[in-house]
Amino acid sequence: MGNSEITRTGILDAALAEFAAHGVAGARVDRIAAAAGCNKNLIYVYFQSKENLFATVLEQQLPRVYREIPFTPDDLAGYAARVFDFAMDNPALMRLLAWNGLEGRAAPQPVRTRARDEKVRELATGTAEAGFAPEFLLTAVMALATAWAEPSPYGPGLDPDGGTDRDALRATVHRAVAVLAGAPPAG
Amino acid sequence: MGNSEITRTGILDAALAEFAAHGVAGARVDRIAAAAGCNKNLIYVYFQSKENLFATVLEQQLPRVYREIPFTPDDLAGYAARVFDFAMDNPALMRLLAWNGLEGRAAPQPVRTRARDEKVRELATGTAEAGFAPEFLLTAVMALATAWAEPSPYGPGLDPDGGTDRDALRATVHRAVAVLAGAPPAG
Repeated sequence: MGNSEITRTGILDAALAEFAAHGVAGARVDRIAAAAGCNKNLIYVYFQSKENLFATVLEQQLPRVYREIPFTPDDLAGYAARVFDFAMDNPALMRLLAWNGLEGRAAPQPVRTRARDEKVRELATGTAEAGFAPEFLLTAVMALATAWAEPSPYGPGLDPDGGTDRDALRATVHRAVAVLAGAPPAG
Repeated sequence: MGNSEITRTGILDAALAEFAAHGVAGARVDRIAAAAGCNKNLIYVYFQSKENLFATVLEQQLPRVYREIPFTPDDLAGYAARVFDFAMDNPALMRLLAWNGLEGRAAPQPVRTRARDEKVRELATGTAEAGFAPEFLLTAVMALATAWAEPSPYGPGLDPDGGTDRDALRATVHRAVAVLAGAPPAG
């Protein structure tokens, strides 16, 4: 890596921490510069604006979700357990997504919509007999698997002890999704 | 109502809209003053700080949740359907809770923790035979019932058509919670 590449990487790392903590409106470019050990103006040279820096951090982080959590349409409960662990291990990324949902300042993420549509298609192929539509199951899995992660309104802020026994909680999320995925069609 | 009471109510209404849109960091007291038709200094006289104004708005809004969504421990699916409707009908309050979870600037809400503990107790009494612990069921209900509401990271931003047929979606949330609440104990 050249010097400018090292600086760019340092800025992106510092920006991830700053945006995760404060969102776009609350983030301070001078704090990012101080943490990255570079001149504030350099951030504008590289990234033009705070909003664009946020969008760049999000674009850089999102592919990790798809790379690190393989989707298994015929084992939805196993997928939910992996999403659960990823959400517990990556509070900064989860907060970034939550800020983005609230602030709505960054451009929409076509990569997220495409990844979701692809999952819905895979799920529809494997579960013709399922009691719930693939779209519903997928959203239910995401909501359940992330409900105990840091930025959830029903997570640690409301129920500080809820995630203490992580293995037991993961097993329960796994079982709940297995129950939903195995439910018979509505009669 | 006296004049000062009218002014105070106007400020709280304007503050709810401003905080729902922008959170605490992004909110501007001069926009709240303009919307309420009062002098900006008056807001500081009444509420001391932007943070305290946010806390006051949240304290004023939270009791609505408990008043307008009666908890029915022996009909958890019906409760989920009511939470679903409340979340869809009150995007500003849902956003306020989401901002509060992320910004963590306001004092913690003992009223939320107390209300939750009370629900867990009621649920434990009614469902000794249930397959899932009351704490888990309650968080699962909240996560599922609010997953399609506006500030959810898996809601309209990711799946714009997901909430189009609201009656069908409410019925599916009802059925999913009925399936979870009726699941047999883990074998």
